[in-house]
Amino acid sequence: MSAYAAPVRDMRFVIEDVVGLGRVAALPGLEGTDGDLLEQILAEAGKLAGGVLAPLNEIGDRQGSRLENGVVRTPDGFADGYRQFIEGGWNGVAFEEEWGGMGLPWLVATALQEMWQASNLAFGLCPLLTQAAIDALREVGSEEQKRLYLPKLVSGEWTGTMNLTEPQAGTDLAAIRTRAEKMDDGSYRLRGQKIFITYGDHDFTDNIVHLVLARSPDGIEGTKGLSLYIVPKFLVNPDGSLGARNDAKPISVEHKLGIHASPTCVMAYGENEGAVGYLVGEENRGIEYMFIMMNNARLAVGLQGLAIAERAYQQAVDYARNRVQSRALQGSAGPVSIIHHPDVRRMLMTMKAQIEAMRGLIYDVAAAIDVADRHPDATERRKAQARVDLLIPVAKAWCTDAAVEICSTGVQVHGGMGFIEETGAAQHYRDARITPIYEGANGIQALDLVGRKVARDGGAAMDAFLVDVDATLAALAGDDPALAHLRDRLSAGRDALARATDWVVATMPKDPAAAASPSALFLKLFGLVAGGWLMARSALAARDALTAGANGDASWLETKLVTARHYADHLLSQAPSLLAAIEAGGTTVMALAEDQF
Amino acid sequence: MSAYAAPVRDMRFVIEDVVGLGRVAALPGLEGTDGDLLEQILAEAGKLAGGVLAPLNEIGDRQGSRLENGVVRTPDGFADGYRQFIEGGWNGVAFEEEWGGMGLPWLVATALQEMWQASNLAFGLCPLLTQAAIDALREVGSEEQKRLYLPKLVSGEWTGTMNLTEPQAGTDLAAIRTRAEKMDDGSYRLRGQKIFITYGDHDFTDNIVHLVLARSPDGIEGTKGLSLYIVPKFLVNPDGSLGARNDAKPISVEHKLGIHASPTCVMAYGENEGAVGYLVGEENRGIEYMFIMMNNARLAVGLQGLAIAERAYQQAVDYARNRVQSRALQGSAGPVSIIHHPDVRRMLMTMKAQIEAMRGLIYDVAAAIDVADRHPDATERRKAQARVDLLIPVAKAWCTDAAVEICSTGVQVHGGMGFIEETGAAQHYRDARITPIYEGANGIQALDLVGRKVARDGGAAMDAFLVDVDATLAALAGDDPALAHLRDRLSAGRDALARATDWVVATMPKDPAAAASPSALFLKLFGLVAGGWLMARSALAARDALTAGANGDASWLETKLVTARHYADHLLSQAPSLLAAIEAGGTTVMALAEDQF
Repeated sequence: MSAYAAPVRDMRFVIEDVVGLGRVAALPGLEGTDGDLLEQILAEAGKLAGGVLAPLNEIGDRQGSRLENGVVRTPDGFADGYRQFIEGGWNGVAFEEEWGGMGLPWLVATALQEMWQASNLAFGLCPLLTQAAIDALREVGSEEQKRLYLPKLVSGEWTGTMNLTEPQAGTDLAAIRTRAEKMDDGSYRLRGQKIFITYGDHDFTDNIVHLVLARSPDGIEGTKGLSLYIVPKFLVNPDGSLGARNDAKPISVEHKLGIHASPTCVMAYGENEGAVGYLVGEENRGIEYMFIMMNNARLAVGLQGLAIAERAYQQAVDYARNRVQSRALQGSAGPVSIIHHPDVRRMLMTMKAQIEAMRGLIYDVAAAIDVADRHPDATERRKAQARVDLLIPVAKAWCTDAAVEICSTGVQVHGGMGFIEETGAAQHYRDARITPIYEGANGIQALDLVGRKVARDGGAAMDAFLVDVDATLAALAGDDPALAHLRDRLSAGRDALARATDWVVATMPKDPAAAASPSALFLKLFGLVAGGWLMARSALAARDALTAGANGDASWLETKLVTARHYADHLLSQAPSLLAAIEAGGTTVMALAEDQF
Repeated sequence: MSAYAAPVRDMRFVIEDVVGLGRVAALPGLEGTDGDLLEQILAEAGKLAGGVLAPLNEIGDRQGSRLENGVVRTPDGFADGYRQFIEGGWNGVAFEEEWGGMGLPWLVATALQEMWQASNLAFGLCPLLTQAAIDALREVGSEEQKRLYLPKLVSGEWTGTMNLTEPQAGTDLAAIRTRAEKMDDGSYRLRGQKIFITYGDHDFTDNIVHLVLARSPDGIEGTKGLSLYIVPKFLVNPDGSLGARNDAKPISVEHKLGIHASPTCVMAYGENEGAVGYLVGEENRGIEYMFIMMNNARLAVGLQGLAIAERAYQQAVDYARNRVQSRALQGSAGPVSIIHHPDVRRMLMTMKAQIEAMRGLIYDVAAAIDVADRHPDATERRKAQARVDLLIPVAKAWCTDAAVEICSTGVQVHGGMGFIEETGAAQHYRDARITPIYEGANGIQALDLVGRKVARDGGAAMDAFLVDVDATLAALAGDDPALAHLRDRLSAGRDALARATDWVVATMPKDPAAAASPSALFLKLFGLVAGGWLMARSALAARDALTAGANGDASWLETKLVTARHYADHLLSQAPSLLAAIEAGGTTVMALAEDQF
């Protein structure tokens, strides 16, 4: 029911003027990336997203994927949409040309991913998981594995999956029971059951490459005994042709709150002769390799949050422009469209401001990935990687928590019609709800942030972040009252974040449970401030462009100043208030006995 | 999949010790209401809610109500559940014995309503709407109408509906087109279509009493030309027996995000000979009468927010106690149930604290309704009514916004299982989403608050509220560090609310759109402070009971002190930060042109 138009103008502004395409295009191997190329790619991708994938979104929700005679059938049109997607070469844009990719910057690929996820979140999961499999194989696959699998995965001729979870092993991967037995030919036989396997089976492609975390033959307990295996749906002959059907199959598809078109499978490995698997990298380093897959997938899920929020926003704006109801408070002859009513505008402005902050943050992390991958200076690469590591849990959790709120607000803008399924706003609200859960629930992201990313290095990565915020604060100095306002709120948020960081660093060694108790609130504080930092950079970029003479763009650029100020007043202003709960630590959180709840 | 146990202990504590049963039992006609009676009633109702209605909740979601051959079929077991409900006499507990009710205080009836709504929100809507119809007929029905309809509605032998909305007339009732024509016999014939009619048809009872807002025969435009009519499904003979089928019927049932068991009907009135209707009260006073129905219904919807939040909390606690995953951060031999993990506890504590604040607030309003209805002193009645009027939009909107958040957190506590429909947590998330929408979307509540309830009397009702908060602040004075902490946060919240009130009162006459722009945030600030006030009273009541010697209840009473402190640190602490956005008024909210969104 709802159209999606890729926000190309906003994407270009963030890429070129806020994050800085120049900085990325200066990296070795990315020299050709300029504004013209960017415009062309975004426009082309926007056509596929808006014209093909977006209209499938509602069909996918209504029909869902289902298991029929042992194979998964996706909704009408999905397989054809996938065919168009890979024929356009979109599956491998950020991967090396060596494997058939386009070798584009992550910064650009991220904007494209935003389109796939916004137009059709359930569809977009399939390439997202393939990308995670590619990441793992690129980094730790053998030359033979790369040769056999990477070209097909990069082109999208085959897809990839990530198999971690078992009924007793969700967050706690140490409890994994699926096990591998070593064969004389060097291959393995896997036996066990995995749950929550996204696109564990489907009808898009001839083959599926499952990456499965399983207990190594030596049977060491805990996470130290886990290895990573390639388990293809169909075995692959040395010449790349398909061989026998492997003993790996979907045995049910979950009935979920949302993303109905994405088949969430229970996978049975080795119910008969054992599923043939091939060790990736070394034995018992599976967890380490999984994190290679997870890390980029976490950023991609944060991006899903941004994407579905943008979709919900577009739908809400469309409804608010067209639904006529009641006179304007500020006076009008007759009823007006509800976009004129203050509270509806407030909802839309807050959605818009938060979305722009999320986009800035995620694209900024993507640019840091490019720097970490390609900068000629090792120190710069290391610094960029530290920034990526610091911000990934924030991008994942803050953006997905916000997505749920924004999609909920999107329903609210529609009034009663929002609760009617045919309107489509409710689908976003349902679909978005998975994003704070998968690829590490947001509580796990928060724990990762306070533990591994902040406390472990004594706040060093955070200090480097605050130095960058201070540079932006310095740039906001001056006589412009709109920027001064932003500066004051960002400064207050920055100080609160610094104080909270000191508290985390001091508390974690003494009392980890106390430090972990408010970890989600620490993450929220960080997200608000990081978002404010990006909004400040957005406002500065807009101001500079206005000063330079905007070539008719003044009206559009001025919205960036308004949105930044709205973010400052309505969102960033909350940041310091989180200190109360953070500094309370475990006082009340850890106080009750189990039976007192 | 999830059990519901009525939180009788908490309900009694709030009724007896926080709000004060004594104050209500001192009112004329309510003298017999004591703790023993209360315990007995709550226990009995709890059995029906937990044993009969709660198990129907999931069936209702799965089957939904549907239109078959022109009549609505409710899910299996619902009609029998309704029969048990009315046989227990629960439908009319708060109404006069004259009409077959029990004449209990609203304070007590509210606790019972919490149980019906928590056990089965979709079921609970039916008596909620009947109650609204009873309210209107009690106040403005003719003696004959009261005689014919009230006993059947109070007993629940018939149910009632509210018919306001039409496709073009949601919030804007001035746009209503359904019209009434006057007949020679004094009756009317109605013609038009109404949408979103809750329980517009069903198979619980022999008859349904539709209260329909329609344009009067004189055809005056706008809301001033609307009258209220009784349109029974079956005409009622003077002896109370049923006559002919009226020309009023359901023509479709909506496919909704949640509350699937509640039939949301499109109703066609007068497709043939015209639907026979009877004028309620005077012509062209329909809007005024509708507000009689709406006002209590708004409180009841706020109560639904509390109820579904409690249900989601119980389910989340149950899961967190039973799901074993990962070792404890504070050290444990093996994996522990997740209720031991700090972020899970934080989620549960915040749910719990907010729910207790919501319960306190809603029950306090219910007690004020009793005082407004029955106090012998007219000044006291007037003061109590002013308090009710002030707090109803807050109770409705703050509690329902919180309900959506709490049910979302409930899903999150379940991790991946929360996204699987069979778990049941997702149903609460879907069901809860209607509560900020119906009976006046929360934006309308906020506008009502800042316009009619705060600005119109120059802040007088708010000043009276703040005087009560100050009395509680004075009671918090002393050496107890836990209470001092609470006092400081409540004091800061109170000051922010007072300042925001001054801003609203000063701004509304000059610039209504600016005053309305942050109205939802003003309401949130008010809700946080009002909730904090109730939590402070809860803490004081617990402290007093502990001081008096708790008879083995010390452990339970101490949780009230912990929960109050958690509320202060994690929720009330946010209140002052809302001032930034409130005092920004329309600066950014009203800044963009329509096409700049």
